Parts: sequence; C-alpha cells; structure tokens
Amino acid sequence: MTPEQVRRGHRGPTAGLADGYAQANLVAVPADWAYDVLLFAQRNPKPCPVLDVTDAGDTTTVLARDADLRRDLPRYRVWEHGELVDEPTDASAHWRDDLVAFLIGCSFTFESALKQAHVPLRHVEQGRNVPMYVTDRECRPAGRLHGPVVVSMRYVPADLVETAREVTARMPAVHGAPVHVGDPAALGIADLDRPDFGDRTEPHAGDVPVFWACGVTPQAAVMASKPPFAITHAPGHMFVTDVPDSAYRV
Amino acid sequence: MTPEQVRRGHRGPTAGLADGYAQANLVAVPADWAYDVLLFAQRNPKPCPVLDVTDAGDTTTVLARDADLRRDLPRYRVWEHGELVDEPTDASAHWRDDLVAFLIGCSFTFESALKQAHVPLRHVEQGRNVPMYVTDRECRPAGRLHGPVVVSMRYVPADLVETAREVTARMPAVHGAPVHVGDPAALGIADLDRPDFGDRTEPHAGDVPVFWACGVTPQAAVMASKPPFAITHAPGHMFVTDVPDSAYRV
Repeated sequence: MTPEQVRRGHRGPTAGLADGYAQANLVAVPADWAYDVLLFAQRNPKPCPVLDVTDAGDTTTVLARDADLRRDLPRYRVWEHGELVDEPTDASAHWRDDLVAFLIGCSFTFESALKQAHVPLRHVEQGRNVPMYVTDRECRPAGRLHGPVVVSMRYVPADLVETAREVTARMPAVHGAPVHVGDPAALGIADLDRPDFGDRTEPHAGDVPVFWACGVTPQAAVMASKPPFAITHAPGHMFVTDVPDSAYRV
Repeated sequence: MTPEQVRRGHRGPTAGLADGYAQANLVAVPADWAYDVLLFAQRNPKPCPVLDVTDAGDTTTVLARDADLRRDLPRYRVWEHGELVDEPTDASAHWRDDLVAFLIGCSFTFESALKQAHVPLRHVEQGRNVPMYVTDRECRPAGRLHGPVVVSMRYVPADLVETAREVTARMPAVHGAPVHVGDPAALGIADLDRPDFGDRTEPHAGDVPVFWACGVTPQAAVMASKPPFAITHAPGHMFVTDVPDSAYRV
C-alpha cells in the first residue's frame, strides 16, 4: 500500500504498512495548551520527538500531501478531562478550530531499517499490533503536563540486540536507541503478556525483550494531566506520512 | 579552563575553551512570546536545536550546576523592538521575572570531534571568533517570528570535507551536517571576508568554505520580528555547559 492508500482507506493498526515511509503519533490540544505540549515534548525528546506542529485551525501538515488530519488516521481517541469519550475512525465531528496538532515520531519508522539489518519483527510476523506498556518512569513535567514514559517492546534474538541498538540509535527523531534491554521489572512492567496498549507477541527461543520510548507517552500525559479536551491517534493506528523513513536516519 | 571557570570569569569569545563540553546559544523572551520561539525552533531544527527551556522566572538550567543565566555568559545583547540597546557582560540589571530562556545547540560543541578527526580549526588556530553570515534563506516562520538562516563558516582542507560532514552529521543537536559546501553566493553571501558576526579567518591553500546552520538564527529572528524585549548572548560568546559534548553524539 502507498501512504496515501493507508490514509484514505485503512482502519487497523499500521505496523508493517507503507514500508519505507515514516509514521507518526498524533496529539491535538486546544491552543491554550499547545505550549505545555511543545515544552513537554522538548523536555522528553526520547518519547516525544516532534516532527511537525500545525497552526490552530489548520488540519494539514508538511509531512503528507493533501492529508486531512481529521480523518486520515485509521482510528482516533477523543479525550475530555483525561477520560476517553470516543474512539472514531473519523474525528471530523469532534475537531475544533482551536486545536493545535502535534505529530510525534513513531518507532514503526525504524522497522524497515531493522528488517534490512535482518532483525526479525515478531509483531509483524504474527500479524499483531506492537505491545506497549506504561512504565514507572516519570517524564520531566512541563507546565500543566506530567505523566509516565510509555514504551513499545520488541522481542529480539539475543545475538541481534546490539545490531538493533545501533540501527535505531541513528534515528533519534523516531525514538532512537532502546531505553532498556532485558528485565521488564526494571521499568515497573509486571507482565509482558498483558500490554497496556496493542497486542501481546510471542517470543522465539533465545529472544530478549527490548524496550523503546513510545509516542503514546503524550497520550498517557493527557490521561494523567486531564486537559479539558484532546484528540489523539489510537495506539498503533498511526498517521502514515509521505516522508521516506531514511529522512530520519542520521 | 573548566566550564565553571569560563562561566565565572571569562569575557571574550568561547571557541576552543573548556574543550570537551557543550556550548549553547541563549535567547530569552517574555513568556507571552515563548510559544513562538519554541515553535520557531521546532520548525527550524538545523539552526535552532533546543537543549533546554527554563520556566519563567527561573534563571537556572539543567545543563550546568549552580549556573545563573543572568550573568554566567561572557557577553549579552539586550534587544527592544528588534533594536540592540545594550551589550553588557552581566545581564542582571536587564533581566525580568517573565523571561523564558532558551538554550540552543552551538557548533563549537562539535569542534573537539573535528579536532579528533584531524580537521584543523582555522579560527581557533588564528585566535579568532568563528565568522558568521546572514544568508538569503528564510526560516520557516512560526507565529509572530520569522527571519533568515544564519550560518557559521569554517575553512576545511578539500580532502577533509567529507570527514567533517560525517563527524558533524552525527551531532544533530548541535546543528549536524553542513547546510552548504563551497560557493558562498549560493547562500547569498557576498564576501567571506566581511562576516556579519564574529571575525574573518584566513584560509590555507586548498581550503574550501563549509557552512553550518548557526544558533545566532533566533537572534536574527529577534531583529526581523521585533518582539518588545529579548536578551541573547553576543555572537560567539556562548554559555558553556557542564554537559560533555559526547552526550550529543548519536
């Protein structure tokens, strides 16, 4: 599928789709919360690398031609005071003229580089969404925003962990190097088989869990900090851009 | 000199000082201009990579222990409506409680990596400030802020240009790879011997001019966009941090 085909027609998780194109997390907030979000992202660049910020009232982005951020993601989450109130496939009816949209780098963007380096992707092999977990690490707060770091996890064969680290370290705009390798308890994760978002995946013998900072983190900050209103993507249901993922390789 | 010694006692340009520690540009604006500056930086990451942002009224930074941003830079520039009104070595008398300070990556930070790669630094050899030029390239505007891209220039032996490109590409937080190599006219620069900021340097035979995006760019945006008030560093007179410059190497 081309990026445009995913934007126009797809409704499920986007891992493995439009191979070679960068994907992005979305968080849109009323303009009077935009500075808090942008500062939160600046202070937490591993989970929140900002790829683009719209002006209030503008629903287009420099990252994709003719895209409409109100309806070109596969699924949205709509939040009021930190509570999930709807999960539509089209957010047009909820969108407001005062919303500023932030597009945040997504780890799906480094997956083609991992594949090229012969690192297997278990969730793609198994046709599942990547598993994501809320950790016990707190982000550095900014203004009225605070919340925990969220991570995505990929099982990686032990002898390829260093390769995975090197490949992803060169892509800081899409979360960069892992934040942790090995014991999930070190991040306060109780059970890898019960992710907070996405699907559980099956390890192969000799696989090690590797954790990357995740762009669901601003969404966790919305839950924790309770701005009056926000629209985000549904975890794993990303905005697929027209930007080649090589553009984010250093 | 240690970073702390530079912060406490030094009054001139900082190129080549406190070798191995990151240096930073400063731009401080009233809180009601902070979103414009932060968005301008996000939209122009090559010239404006943000290393830290203070809260209004806070004159400390996570980048240096016990530092006071009002007086620990060698020289400041004070701006009213885009006009330079003072150039003190201590900005305490001008500082206001509503100022938000932005610390922006500086290319001096990659100079020790260039030295390690045996790329000579003509301005350091010649005991001069690096030459900086206003280009004819416009930044992507943000809110009320607009202005041209400013670049620093280093003469590099032709056979080391690729080395210089590779070394600096790995440090995106301090401007990364060059924006241009060779003909200054391609950037609208009329005469390399008449820099807009800093000092002219002397090329050696076989040297090629190499241009990097420069953290004086937000200062040029202050001149062009005329916020009511701002305090910046004086070009080349940087804030020396306690952060090893290797921390910004990918």
